[in-house]
Amino acid sequence: MARAWTLKSRPQGLPTADNFELVDLGRRDLGEGEVRIANSWLSVDPYMRGRMNDVKSYTPPFELGAPMQGGAIGTVVESRSDRFKEGETVQHFAGWRDEAVLPADQVQPLPQIDVDPQAYLGQFGMPGMTAYFGLIEVAGAQEGDTVFVSAAAGAVGSTVVQIAKAKGCRVIGSAGGAEKCAWVESLGADAVIDYKSGTPVVKALGEVARNGIDVYFDNVGGEHLDAALAHGKQGARLAICGMIDVYNSGKATELRYLARLIGMRMRVQGFIVSDYMDRAAEFYRDMGGWLKDGKLQRHETVRDGLEATPDAFLGLFSGGNTGKMLVRL
Amino acid sequence: MARAWTLKSRPQGLPTADNFELVDLGRRDLGEGEVRIANSWLSVDPYMRGRMNDVKSYTPPFELGAPMQGGAIGTVVESRSDRFKEGETVQHFAGWRDEAVLPADQVQPLPQIDVDPQAYLGQFGMPGMTAYFGLIEVAGAQEGDTVFVSAAAGAVGSTVVQIAKAKGCRVIGSAGGAEKCAWVESLGADAVIDYKSGTPVVKALGEVARNGIDVYFDNVGGEHLDAALAHGKQGARLAICGMIDVYNSGKATELRYLARLIGMRMRVQGFIVSDYMDRAAEFYRDMGGWLKDGKLQRHETVRDGLEATPDAFLGLFSGGNTGKMLVRL
Repeated sequence: MARAWTLKSRPQGLPTADNFELVDLGRRDLGEGEVRIANSWLSVDPYMRGRMNDVKSYTPPFELGAPMQGGAIGTVVESRSDRFKEGETVQHFAGWRDEAVLPADQVQPLPQIDVDPQAYLGQFGMPGMTAYFGLIEVAGAQEGDTVFVSAAAGAVGSTVVQIAKAKGCRVIGSAGGAEKCAWVESLGADAVIDYKSGTPVVKALGEVARNGIDVYFDNVGGEHLDAALAHGKQGARLAICGMIDVYNSGKATELRYLARLIGMRMRVQGFIVSDYMDRAAEFYRDMGGWLKDGKLQRHETVRDGLEATPDAFLGLFSGGNTGKMLVRL
Repeated sequence: MARAWTLKSRPQGLPTADNFELVDLGRRDLGEGEVRIANSWLSVDPYMRGRMNDVKSYTPPFELGAPMQGGAIGTVVESRSDRFKEGETVQHFAGWRDEAVLPADQVQPLPQIDVDPQAYLGQFGMPGMTAYFGLIEVAGAQEGDTVFVSAAAGAVGSTVVQIAKAKGCRVIGSAGGAEKCAWVESLGADAVIDYKSGTPVVKALGEVARNGIDVYFDNVGGEHLDAALAHGKQGARLAICGMIDVYNSGKATELRYLARLIGMRMRVQGFIVSDYMDRAAEFYRDMGGWLKDGKLQRHETVRDGLEATPDAFLGLFSGGNTGKMLVRL
């Protein structure tokens, strides 16, 4: 019997376990061209919070009462498609459930890179592509640039740190707590800011970036963004990937240093990774090379069992993960 | 006896008359290569407020006790340079004074366009170039775009309105009070928001831009910027020219709609007109053409006499000007 998490009610502010309901999907026979997949890994990601609101955005809102969606890795257990055989490991977007029945064109084989399958939900998947295209294309990071990245212990941020180092940048990461900061440093960051230390981020950043920053990769918004505005050099580029600070609070962002945009000719650019999907080959090529050269490390925070999925998701907003947050089935 | 305004003390917040002092400069003979200019028009501009702070920026701060600077138009009354003859009308940057003694290489002849000389301090000068390059280059405004511009009755904003119309855009301007709004409408704006009417700008903009905006030309920051973020279409470009809202208050900007940058892939770009000075010929060519075609109107708010200069400057922050604020000597 397949089971799936549904959105029972739309959260106001921070979601709680009550917003989610685990339901039986029953079992149906495959139609022509369909495959049945037993999921082994589910992804939870901060952007999913936006889909819980009934607001038109770049992805449609989750429907109340319907199975939720998200990245997943699984094994084909039954196939009525020429494209997939039983036993094959695949990726798809019907997450938040233990078993998925999908048309074969909504299922992708795994790229041929020597990593664990679950890495395709993190560093070698959507979060990794977000880091790669955000840093290189949107922010235009160049060798010698000083790059500041927030949530540097997260799935996206930790990959930004490593790609920036591979590109010859000086990297400053921000993370919450000594343990995460130590991990970010172990990834090669030249300086790490502990934003929970009590020192305002704007002050801490000024101390480790005395000549300013060329690039900011924003995963959180709020005072991190303001600190980047305060210390941006002339021509600095700020790639806005996420604002986890406001996803739940809905509060206004207070920026004291916004007017520096003018004198410093800074650029702030929002982006969505899906706009770069047709360039995935570049990502796999470069990431594969850096992996072989020993320049990429990975860490996963794993919760076990389908029941743990909402809790894993909520952990994203309380700093519960180092590296990619995953659910193992 | 030449006289000049000096900065007596650095303003905290909104400047007052007490921050300025009119001093005698005495009279000195010209050195080789110098010219003496009797000024006839002085420019006061919002960016000058930034130069009154002792903060490193794109232009150096005004020195306390030294003659202030700014755009000026005058007549050469004595010349020891081959480049300028007595009686010639010229432009230069030694404003805030009645007479300037300058090396000839700091003096420029007026471009050959059929406008009054003082227009080179406004629509055909720095404010006009700011409008032109900000709208066309920084914001990349295209035919058919919906363009929103704040301070649309100001020197820069009123030129943005007219260039945008000449380029085939739909234009929404914001100004304070019925009289200014009527003038902006007379310039060709398709819709005008009176930000003093009591309706929040975000609501007013939504009513006249139901499909959103492609371009925002920001002269004020604050709630106008937030409204532009709230209504930006996918790929919207926000050119940040000035933030008169925060020049004096120093207060933080509260943005409720900043996270829309991400889903809408919006770009926010600060700029300084001086970066485009080497392309002035393009500006004069296009503006000259639009002038001939009857597409440009101009309005000046004029204060008379050198004594009135600080008051003219302060008027910029209290909505005292429609069109370009000038001092006539």
